Amino acid sequence: MDRISSHACFGGTQGIYRHRSASTGTDMEVAVFVPPQAADGPLPVLTYLSGLTCTWENFTVKAGAQRYAAEHGVIIVAPDTSPRGLDLPGEHASYDFGSGAGFYVDATQDPWKTNYRMYSYIRDELPGLIASEFKIDPARQGIFGHSMGGHGALVMAFRNPDRYRSVSAFSPIVSASRVPWGEKALGGYLGQDREAWKQYDASLLAEKGGWKSPILVDQGTSDQFLEKELKPELLEEACAKSGTPLTLRRQPGYDHSYYFISTFMGDHIAHHAKLLKA
Amino acid sequence: MDRISSHACFGGTQGIYRHRSASTGTDMEVAVFVPPQAADGPLPVLTYLSGLTCTWENFTVKAGAQRYAAEHGVIIVAPDTSPRGLDLPGEHASYDFGSGAGFYVDATQDPWKTNYRMYSYIRDELPGLIASEFKIDPARQGIFGHSMGGHGALVMAFRNPDRYRSVSAFSPIVSASRVPWGEKALGGYLGQDREAWKQYDASLLAEKGGWKSPILVDQGTSDQFLEKELKPELLEEACAKSGTPLTLRRQPGYDHSYYFISTFMGDHIAHHAKLLKA
Repeated sequence: MDRISSHACFGGTQGIYRHRSASTGTDMEVAVFVPPQAADGPLPVLTYLSGLTCTWENFTVKAGAQRYAAEHGVIIVAPDTSPRGLDLPGEHASYDFGSGAGFYVDATQDPWKTNYRMYSYIRDELPGLIASEFKIDPARQGIFGHSMGGHGALVMAFRNPDRYRSVSAFSPIVSASRVPWGEKALGGYLGQDREAWKQYDASLLAEKGGWKSPILVDQGTSDQFLEKELKPELLEEACAKSGTPLTLRRQPGYDHSYYFISTFMGDHIAHHAKLLKA
Repeated sequence: MDRISSHACFGGTQGIYRHRSASTGTDMEVAVFVPPQAADGPLPVLTYLSGLTCTWENFTVKAGAQRYAAEHGVIIVAPDTSPRGLDLPGEHASYDFGSGAGFYVDATQDPWKTNYRMYSYIRDELPGLIASEFKIDPARQGIFGHSMGGHGALVMAFRNPDRYRSVSAFSPIVSASRVPWGEKALGGYLGQDREAWKQYDASLLAEKGGWKSPILVDQGTSDQFLEKELKPELLEEACAKSGTPLTLRRQPGYDHSYYFISTFMGDHIAHHAKLLKA
């Protein structure tokens, strides 16, 4: 990993890195915040997955997460949302598919299947890289995210309860196979056989059970995407069915922006820190 | 004032507004954070002046100030750094003069003198507008800023101790008449008679005394502009001479970015709140 830049922040270091990715076949950029406690030994790692159109930057400059990460002694990793530097047919044509919109899946369809492998990148490659460059405790990993990244975090946790100890989300797409954003993305990356979509639908995965630790989800009631794309009630119903421990908080008047995310960031990092340090 | 957008944030409201300015003869945009305590009566107002190239946005999305403003019950006003929408000769040619670089002065030279009147805008017009639109206590106003905005805040406070009760700055240009950024700006806006520059030099103003309440200045030691443009020692010497109560903190390893500003934002808002609510 090459360091692009580095900034002192809340007694720790906010670094931005570039590395070659075997999963995507491209260079990838990633932001890593290392809190001051890193001097004392291996720390838990919390990965944040961003939403549509984002890179590592939105979260890193807008969420105010460093303060809480420094308080709790947690490393925070913020990857990009898709491969970059390609020019596949139609890749940059819309904000909700292709570049900036990898949906954290491993594509199976042409022309996406070679590079759009964000599921493998986030699950396998990135944690390995982070472990090789920073003093982390690989047994203590958590994951969270926003919108498309909330979808990614929930899917990643529910499919890999052995790898992640904690999960939370801000205004997640909770059922990608049943909303327009998800139908477009899963159809494009995985093809029209909807059976293949189920492995990337957080609510369908939650219904099967298997995730045991408390989940925190915050959702603003004035979120413009609430009814059409997010549908938190589907996750609520699925978790109720399987006995999965979900706390879904409907936050009155909050929208889909980082003004909302920053407001509840402290609660989310405290939620993860408690589970990761238990 | 027309509201462009509004977001729930830390229990309060982050609004972005546009208004016609008599000072600049242009439309101006300004961000105003109103904390939840506004429901209980008039609140103190804290104005933040941004640095070169910024608009209201950098501070509003990156500084993490809303959390502390909501904690202390302070309204925060973040104006733009110059008039916009003009196309004066050379106005957009460099990052450190013209658009995004008003330096908080009232220009006296052509072609700037008609519109580049940021001193009057910040001192007189904007507080009047804010008082007419929000429930504020006009007797309790503070001002702070970063870099060029730290210069603006210190100059504004030192020249108007009757209007401001509190002042602080992040990595300010402390002596605009004696550094390259300032010489270029003051020469362009005020002409080559250096006598006219003195009223916009924070250290020369501090030397004369007159400001009585404690001042907080944070300066990163790894700031790339430290030695050439910022020179905090000049403010330190001036305040020592006049007995002006300055706390200058040199923060080891911190740079000029919002990663630095966000780290110490809580201390600055606490500093203002204490003086404004005393």
